[in-house]
Parts: sequence; structure tokens; C-alpha cells
Amino acid sequence: MSSSRCVRKLEVVSPVPADIDVANSVEPFHISEIAKDLNLSSNHYDLYGKYKAKVFSFLLLSFLFLLLLMRMPMSLDFDVLLSVLDELQGSKDGYYVVVGGITPTPLGEGKSTTTVGLCQALGAFLDKKVVTCLRQPSQGPTFGIKGGAAGGGYSQVIPMDEFNLHLTGDIHAITAANNLLAAAIDTRFFHESSQSDKALFNRLCPPNKEGKRKFSDIMFRRLKKLGITKTEPEDLTPEEVKKFARLDIDPNSITWRRVMDVNDRFLRKITVGQGPEEKGMVRETGFDISVASEIMAVLALTTSLADMRERLGKMVIGNSKAGDPITADDLGVGGALTVLMKDAINPTLMQTLEGTPVLVHAGPFANIAHGNSSIVADKIALKLVGPGGFVVTEAGFGADIGTEKFMNIKCRYSGLTPQCAVIVATIRALKMHGGGPEVVAGKPLDHAYLNENVSLVEAGCVNLARHIANTKAYGVNVVVAVNKFSTDTDAEMNAVRNASLAAGAFDAVICSHHAHGGKGAVDLGIAVQKACENVTEPLKFLYPLDIGIKEKIEAIAKSYGAAGVEYSEQAEKQIDMYSRQGFSGLPICMAKTQYSFSHNASAKGAPSGFILPIRDVRASIGAGFIYPLVGTMSTMPGLPTRPCFYEIDLDTATGKVIGLS
Amino acid sequence: MSSSRCVRKLEVVSPVPADIDVANSVEPFHISEIAKDLNLSSNHYDLYGKYKAKVFSFLLLSFLFLLLLMRMPMSLDFDVLLSVLDELQGSKDGYYVVVGGITPTPLGEGKSTTTVGLCQALGAFLDKKVVTCLRQPSQGPTFGIKGGAAGGGYSQVIPMDEFNLHLTGDIHAITAANNLLAAAIDTRFFHESSQSDKALFNRLCPPNKEGKRKFSDIMFRRLKKLGITKTEPEDLTPEEVKKFARLDIDPNSITWRRVMDVNDRFLRKITVGQGPEEKGMVRETGFDISVASEIMAVLALTTSLADMRERLGKMVIGNSKAGDPITADDLGVGGALTVLMKDAINPTLMQTLEGTPVLVHAGPFANIAHGNSSIVADKIALKLVGPGGFVVTEAGFGADIGTEKFMNIKCRYSGLTPQCAVIVATIRALKMHGGGPEVVAGKPLDHAYLNENVSLVEAGCVNLARHIANTKAYGVNVVVAVNKFSTDTDAEMNAVRNASLAAGAFDAVICSHHAHGGKGAVDLGIAVQKACENVTEPLKFLYPLDIGIKEKIEAIAKSYGAAGVEYSEQAEKQIDMYSRQGFSGLPICMAKTQYSFSHNASAKGAPSGFILPIRDVRASIGAGFIYPLVGTMSTMPGLPTRPCFYEIDLDTATGKVIGLS
Repeated sequence: MSSSRCVRKLEVVSPVPADIDVANSVEPFHISEIAKDLNLSSNHYDLYGKYKAKVFSFLLLSFLFLLLLMRMPMSLDFDVLLSVLDELQGSKDGYYVVVGGITPTPLGEGKSTTTVGLCQALGAFLDKKVVTCLRQPSQGPTFGIKGGAAGGGYSQVIPMDEFNLHLTGDIHAITAANNLLAAAIDTRFFHESSQSDKALFNRLCPPNKEGKRKFSDIMFRRLKKLGITKTEPEDLTPEEVKKFARLDIDPNSITWRRVMDVNDRFLRKITVGQGPEEKGMVRETGFDISVASEIMAVLALTTSLADMRERLGKMVIGNSKAGDPITADDLGVGGALTVLMKDAINPTLMQTLEGTPVLVHAGPFANIAHGNSSIVADKIALKLVGPGGFVVTEAGFGADIGTEKFMNIKCRYSGLTPQCAVIVATIRALKMHGGGPEVVAGKPLDHAYLNENVSLVEAGCVNLARHIANTKAYGVNVVVAVNKFSTDTDAEMNAVRNASLAAGAFDAVICSHHAHGGKGAVDLGIAVQKACENVTEPLKFLYPLDIGIKEKIEAIAKSYGAAGVEYSEQAEKQIDMYSRQGFSGLPICMAKTQYSFSHNASAKGAPSGFILPIRDVRASIGAGFIYPLVGTMSTMPGLPTRPCFYEIDLDTATGKVIGLS
Repeated sequence: MSSSRCVRKLEVVSPVPADIDVANSVEPFHISEIAKDLNLSSNHYDLYGKYKAKVFSFLLLSFLFLLLLMRMPMSLDFDVLLSVLDELQGSKDGYYVVVGGITPTPLGEGKSTTTVGLCQALGAFLDKKVVTCLRQPSQGPTFGIKGGAAGGGYSQVIPMDEFNLHLTGDIHAITAANNLLAAAIDTRFFHESSQSDKALFNRLCPPNKEGKRKFSDIMFRRLKKLGITKTEPEDLTPEEVKKFARLDIDPNSITWRRVMDVNDRFLRKITVGQGPEEKGMVRETGFDISVASEIMAVLALTTSLADMRERLGKMVIGNSKAGDPITADDLGVGGALTVLMKDAINPTLMQTLEGTPVLVHAGPFANIAHGNSSIVADKIALKLVGPGGFVVTEAGFGADIGTEKFMNIKCRYSGLTPQCAVIVATIRALKMHGGGPEVVAGKPLDHAYLNENVSLVEAGCVNLARHIANTKAYGVNVVVAVNKFSTDTDAEMNAVRNASLAAGAFDAVICSHHAHGGKGAVDLGIAVQKACENVTEPLKFLYPLDIGIKEKIEAIAKSYGAAGVEYSEQAEKQIDMYSRQGFSGLPICMAKTQYSFSHNASAKGAPSGFILPIRDVRASIGAGFIYPLVGTMSTMPGLPTRPCFYEIDLDTATGKVIGLS
């Protein structure tokens, strides 16, 4: 059992103060203390200040390997170490718990808060080894409308300003890498347009001091792709020179956009190249928020340094005029991208308010990507807690999107098997699904949400029930966590419990971790433990990989309640292209609203019989998924007239951040 | 005397291997060892991995204050502490040495390498306390043409990949802050265009749960600027509501651009706001490289957290339609910018190849900004080395720009006094000034540069002589450092020595630190020590602040050898505007080519009698200078057809960076 030294008993105040005030009310443990609780010595991480550490994912795994293999001689080939770990991990991992939610209101139903609260209960009250795996939030919304993402009330990750801002620089590294690739694309297009094949080739392979031309290592990747086995530039035929040197990018096919970790709506659609030196080679493009970068999805789905190198190199940025995919390695930049990302592959260790460990790593957008934190962090965490311990990881959006992608994309790539899925529900959201009035952020709640109304709750449980059934189908036990608000009544909560059990949930528990910290989630912790200990089925995916793109889309659509799928002309064209290019074996990452099972955000409850429209189909080849667009997805948020930043400042006398929410 | 434990004897190899190979040939000391040599305990810094630490600038100064004042009770008001330090620093600082250069060739003459080599000599061979203060390089050129900036050969900062990439995130913080302000500008303009005064005001001051409207703290800054002393939103008259809520930004006056730390030429000129949600409010603007951000200049020139808060808040982004300057604080974002920059204000401690300490901090562009590392780092370093110790700091570009700005801008704001200025010269550059053929990066050198030609060298010394005379005029002793190449001959070097002494240099020394490390710069170290010990004059600025903008420009132009100054209509208009807005008391930061004393890059040697054309005049009000543009300055570099990144990759078996130059 646990021998944690870093347990802090919270003294809770009612009503719960502002998040930043709760966060600032405790002095965090030095992160080396948290690490010690996980049996990590100072060789296994780099400190980033006093409260953050980057855990060496691959050195760490080699260390564990050593532990496991009783100090066998150590090899420097980490990939080999990784595969040994893979073989051993079935017997040695802790329990793996994923937290999803019902279809939410625009206010959010407290999934992150529940994830943190559950871990505080397991670690600080139930004496279990536990690690919380969370996504790193985008800095954009922190200054916009949403505020931070460290949980809330007495269930938070601290220091919350460090969690929400910069952290250990991973998102900044993604921004840098994404935009280096973007610059490489436009520059190459520009240079190709003004140079002959021979001149281009001579510049790509310039003579060295001795007058000899050489291919750089990365060029052999393109040569191999082209089927050219020659190793000396001088030996290429003019035809081969042309094939090698001229990528012949079709500018209209470029899907790679620039990114920025700021809510900057004016960058959604822009024209670049208007400077006089760019000689009129203007092009329409745009910026996404950094967490929407494919590089973020690569970081979240990679399993080793070597795997990350390959994924970054094979990211497709568009097509040649002949319709062949062009990759980062074709542009010679896959290695540089990996160098920029080499520290980002290490997860950041932090702590909860009650001193339990947290690994923060990656934060891919939940709409155009898969919305889950990293495989690397989960794998490390499962080893660190060991048998009988718990790793709790959050899946973004409702379970129809977040948990579905967790299972069919993340677990497929990681080979990991969850035992339990938590579904977070609130009385508020259930009432909305039962027919309650629209819930709008920033507007006062209707009285239906503030007073008892059991029949609304009962009616809304159709939404919860479908999420339970869908999630259960993966072979995991489902525990419903009702995130209790002060206005909720016993009768309403009983209704949810009954409906949950009727729908096949393993258990359903009322929690008050926002108001009470881990103590408020002890029942949830016990239920999760039982659920993990009583798994009877193996993990089952919703669809196999070796069927067509459309069949996979249709399997997912069915889980939404759709009667069928309708493809736009553009979607058909893209599906044909990806199939022709050999990418049809990838899993599917649906880009759909989180506010309904269907494509129509106002269709609450459990809609069925609708036809799901697929507007377009895109792909993140490096990350490893195809993403069909169901409706329009915004990939760059905006700022309101009065953004959060009006409240944020630094107390220059103490160096403390104020006003962060 | 020094009691350094971190001294490493280099074993040098001839010919000198590639920079990355030299850098990787030694195992760096743990940075806590380097810190210990400076009498810093672990309370004075945050580790960022094993080889970098952020030194707490203001906590540190308070710690030193305690040391100085024999443990008097400590106040939390760091600004008070800072001013006490200012009073005491005359007696307690070490020697302050600035390294400039003659007018360079496009290949660079080794200013950074000489700065590092001199410090290795002082610390590892002459047993002095020494700190090197360097700029953080932009990541853009690292992947473009130029490669890294950690010095070269056996005079380097290590680990060189960490120095050149990400470091401790300061430039990423600048990018984030710069672009948050940019998003705030366009968003505000957008919202003002579609809302009535009253609606705008109501959104800026929304009612809280009790229905009461409140000003946020930052709004009082704008109210004060407008002369409104009321504290309750409800009390404002409609006229005051309009003045407060409507910034009325003139879109054509917006000078604030977005930034990115990537060489992305296609972003030099762009059109933003073309998305359908932006309703046709398109605008032409562009991106600069991040180090060109005014926020970088603020970081370099600030003297305390409170000072940084004020400078960031008063940055001017453009004018209202009535012609009044609009600031970051008017937009409500000065506090958030400070929060984003709160860790960036702490310099990063690293080490040289021979184990001497380095503070890396800030790296403002040397053309449109002042091109010097930070005041904060220099101040800390001067205290840490103490009397008899040395702080060596580099000034970007030739001495006509770098050293001039070091004296008239940086020292003016810091109140610090240098004792010695080093001017780095090469035989190659002197031959060019003497009439040698053009030197072009990437093309083989003409034989004139590879064979002895004393008369070319002698003729070129007019350039060196003017730099010596100009630098001496500040009241410092000038030491010329001839950075020796293997093809240079004794007769050529004697010519430089003679010319240097004739021009009034304190000494002139031949150095071979690139080939030999600190050992190759011992003579330079001794000369610098003597120069520091024999200062006879006080610091004299080139111009006082309380004269007109034009008079200041003319004083600087005269130091270039100009017979006069010619202003464009636009320049005249801007000078009038800044004078009317009350900014004429700021120092001047000339944006001029580094390749000539004049505006004409091909005018080598010591041109005179020319008329210096001022094309435009701009201002960095927060940083605190006016910058006249002499010709066109590129603020966004491009990538060549075959950028450096083709060589760069990660060895995924060892995690080592390869191919970085």
C-alpha cells in the first residue's frame, strides 16, 4: 500500500472561495518530494523551478526496465527497452481509469475537477498509489473567456498559474515546430517557382570546400520514397534530379496552417506573401490555435523518441500537382522538428491540492483531434503506481467523442487496457436534456435548474443512459459520478442513481469534491476501485482498422444514434484521395459538436434516426488519424469585449499573479 | 581572488573540430556547481534541467542587500531594495567591460567568440571572478542561414543546443505577450465598430451577481489618464463613458505587429481579418521576428518588476483618430503581459567550455532596437563578481551602433559605468576596409584575404581608428582584440597594433581563443585588467536627453562621419508627432546598416562628408527610445533554398542533437 509522505489535509471553507484563492491558500510541496513518493530519484527528472519537473520518459522507462530485470546490463537503445516494457506491462501496470462525461451544457460539468477530486480521494483518503494524467491547457482561453483548466474549488492542480501559463514550454515548442514547417513550405514553393531543376538541385546539394556535392541524411528519405537508390548527387539523371528537387507543391492543396497560442480571430483567414520581395506569390491561409496543431496530436499519440521522429517526418502538408502527398521529410525538416520537440516528449510532474502526483502532458484539441492527454504520460504513470495503484486520465468533451477516441484511437496506439470508465453527470445538464430551457454562458440560470424537478432529471437520463451503454460496449465497467451542486436535491440524485444502474452502470455515486476536496469523492474512489477489480470482459473496439473509411465513419455514427451518413461531394473526393494514397487503414477522429450526440447542437437528450452529414474529410497522417468534419469546427477562438485579462496582473511587491480564474 | 571549483582544462585539437563537436566533447558541470562558485545557494535560483538555472533577479538583489547591510530586517518592497543597491553599487561592483567590433564583413568577426574567450581567460587562467553576459539568440536563424550564436571553436557557451533552442522560454514568453496585445488591438477595434458607447461600456463593466458594475483595477489607469477621478461606473456622464470606453483607434496608425521566432518571409506583409465572422474588417499588417518585439527591448532595459509592469503598460500601439497615443494599459492588457513575462525577467545561468559562469538574458534586435543584453543580468553579475571581478557584456553590430547604444541608451537607463571597451577586429575585415574585394557569405574568399597584404590592412585601419576615437570619447579605455585566423601574418598584425595605439587605444592584443580557448586570450585578459584599473575619466554621453529629437540624431550622425542629416516628409511628421506627444526626451536608437559607418553598406573604411537620410522615425515608448530608420531594415529574415535544418536531427538512440552549427 501507499507510503506517501506528501499528504496535505485541507481545511475547507464554505462557501468555496475563488479558485486562485483556494490554490494560493496552500504552500505546494517541493516537486522532488512528490517525485520521491513515486520512487523517482533526482536522476529521473529535470526540475523546472520548485513545483514542476519533467520526467524523462525514455530514460525513466529504462530505469524501470532495470528495476524489472534486476539490474541487467543497460543498453542505450531505448526502443528496445520500450518493447521489453511492452511485453512486461500486462502484469505490472496499475489500474487504468478514464473520465468522460455526459453531453455537457456550455458551462461544463466538472470533468477535470472530478478527475482531480477522484485522485485526491484515492491518494489522500484511500491510501492508494495514484497518478492523475491531465492535458496541458491552451494559454489562449486563459486570457479570453474560459479562464484556466486546473480543476476547481478544492480539487485543483497547483500552482495553478504555472499550470495555466507556459508550464514547461511544450506548447511553445509545438508552436515553434509547426511554424518552422509552415515557413519551409512557402519558402520552398517560392524558390521552386523561380529556379530551374538544375539550379534548384545545385542549391539543395551545394558543393563543399572540396567541390564535392553530398546528400544530407534526411534527403535519403525522399530518395527512398522516390525509389532512387543512388547515393551520389552527381549520379542522378536529369529526370531523377527533377523528381528529387522539385516537390511541385500544389498551393491549393496545402492543408498545413500556422498556429499561435492566442485567441486571435483576425488570423482565422489571412493572405500571406504580400511583401515586395515575395514577388506577388500571395496565398490565402490562416492560423489555428496551437493546440490544434497536428504536432500536438503527434505528441499525444507517440510512444517513443524514434516513433515521434517518424511521425513528425511523415506529416502530410499537401499534395504535389500530380496528387502525391508531400511530407515534412520531403521538405527536409522532420529532424529539426524533432529537435524542437525533444524536451516536450517528457511529461511534467505537478501536484494536486492534497499532494497527490499529476502528470500534465499534451492537450490536443478535442474537436479536430482526439482530445486526450499523452500515451507517454499514461504509460509512465501505470508503471509508477504499479499493481493495485490507479492512473486516472481525462477524455475531453462528452463520452461520445472523448471516451470513444480514447478507446478507438489512443488505446489502439498505446496497447493499454482501461478497467473502468467514469461518466461525470450534473443535475443541471440532465435537466437540460430532459427538456429544460437553454443554458447560456454568462446569463443567469433558469429557475428550473435551481429548484427540484425530478421529472426533468428522469427525462434527461436518456442522454446518460446512451453514454453508459456506448461506454460499456468497450468491455469496461462504468461508474457514474454525479458532480453535486448545492441546489441539487436527494430525490433528483436518486433518480440519476436509479437510471444509471438500470442502464448497466457498475455503480453511480454522488460527489462533492469541489466543496470538500478528496473527502467529497471517497465513495467515488471506492466504487472505482471495485469496478477495476471486477472486470469480466476484454477491451473491444467499436470498429476494426481494416475496413473502409466510410464503414468506420458509419460505425461511429451508429453509436451516436444516427440512421445513416451523408457525404458531401468534397468529402467523397477526400475519402477517395486518402484511400488511393494508402491511408484508409487509419482510425477515425470525428470532428463533431460536443453539445449533442448528433451534428445539431440543439438536439439534446438521445436523438436518433438522423442522417449525419459529413461536410469534409481531412487527415493527420503523422498523428495517425482521418478526421471527418461534421459541420464547421472553429480552430481559432476569439476574445470577448472584456476578456479575462482585464483582471489579471502581477503584484510586483510579492511576484504573485492576481486575478487568474 | 577566485576560489572557483569549476575550472576545466581543455584539451584542444588542431584543426578545430565543428562547433557542435567541440561543445559535445566536454561534460558540462551541474549548474548548481557554477552557481556555488558565485556564492549562490539553491534559494537564489530555479533549476531548468541540469545545465540551466534562472537566477531570481529581485529576490537575489534583496539577498545581496542583506549581505551588504549585515542582515537588517528585510522588507518585501523590492523597489526600495533596488534603490539602496543603486546607492551602494559604486563601491561594490566589479569592473564592467563592453565588447564591440569594427564594421564587420557579412561573415562576422567573432565578437561573441571573443567575449567568451576573454572570460575563459580571466576565469580559468587569470584566477578572476568573471561573468559573461550574453544575449539569447533568436531560434529563427538557427534553422536558417546563420546557425547558432554560442561563440565558436574552443570559446563557447554550453550546452550549445540548449543555448540556441528554447533556453528557459523567455523568447516564447515575449512571443505570447506580443501577440496577446496584437489580438487585443484588433478585437477591440472590431467590437468598437459594432457597438454603441453605452453597449460598449456595459460590456466593459458588466454587472456582477448583485447587479453592480465595477471598474477593474487596470481601468483606473485609463480613467486617470483621461482625468476622470470617479470610482463608480454609474457616475460617469455620457461624455465620460464615451471617452473611457471608446479608444477610437485609427487603424492606419497601428504600429504594433505580430511576431514569431521563425524566419518566415511570407509573413512580412499580410492581410488579416478575411474570415466571414470578421465582417470585412480587413487590415494590412505583418509579422516581425520575435526578438524585434518592443517587449524584448523592455526586458533588456527594465530595472525591476515594477518598472517592467509600467513599461509594458505604457507601450504605444498606435493613435486614436484624434492623434492621442493608445497604450497597452488603455486596452486593459498591461497586467496580463507582465504575468506572461514574470519568469522572463530572471536571467539564465549557463557556463563556458572552461566552466566560467554566463548569464544569458534578452536579445533585442541590433537594428531597430539597441542590440544589448539585459541591464538586470549585468547588474546582478556586477554584484556577484564584486570588486576586482569582471563582467564582460557584448554589444551587437559594429561599435558605431552597438557600443554607441550601450553607452547612450543602456548605461543611461542602468546608471552603470563601464571601465573598458574592447573592439574586436580581424585582418579580413580590415583588408576589406582597405579596398579588398567584396566579401560574400557562401562564396570563397578572394586570395587577398588568404595571403599577406600589409598595405591593405594599413589602409583599412581608418575604420578601426574611428571606432577607437568614438569609443574613447565616452571616457573608457579601449582595448583592441585582433581575432587571429590561421592565414594572418605577424606583419599584418603588427600593422593593426601600431594603428590602434596611434589612434589612442589603451592596448591592442592578438588573440587565438577560437583555436585555444581561454589560453589564447590571456594577453587580452591582462590588457583588459590594466585598462579597467587605469580609468582616468568619468562616463560622458554623446548627447544630453533634454535637447530636441533632431539635435540628438545629428549628434549621432556626426559620430558616423556625416556632414548633415536629411529628413523625409514622413520623418518630419513623426518627429513633430512624438514631440507633441511629449516623447522628445527619450534617447535615440538609430536603425542603420552595420556594414558601414554611413547609410550605404558598400561605403567601407571611414566615409565622411555624406548626408545621412532619415526615411522614417518610429518609437518604442515602453522600452524608452525613438528609432529613426536610415534606409530599409528587415525585421523578418527569410530561409534559403537549403536551410540549416537539412542537417539537424535527433539521434533517437541517445537523445543527442546532431548537425547544429
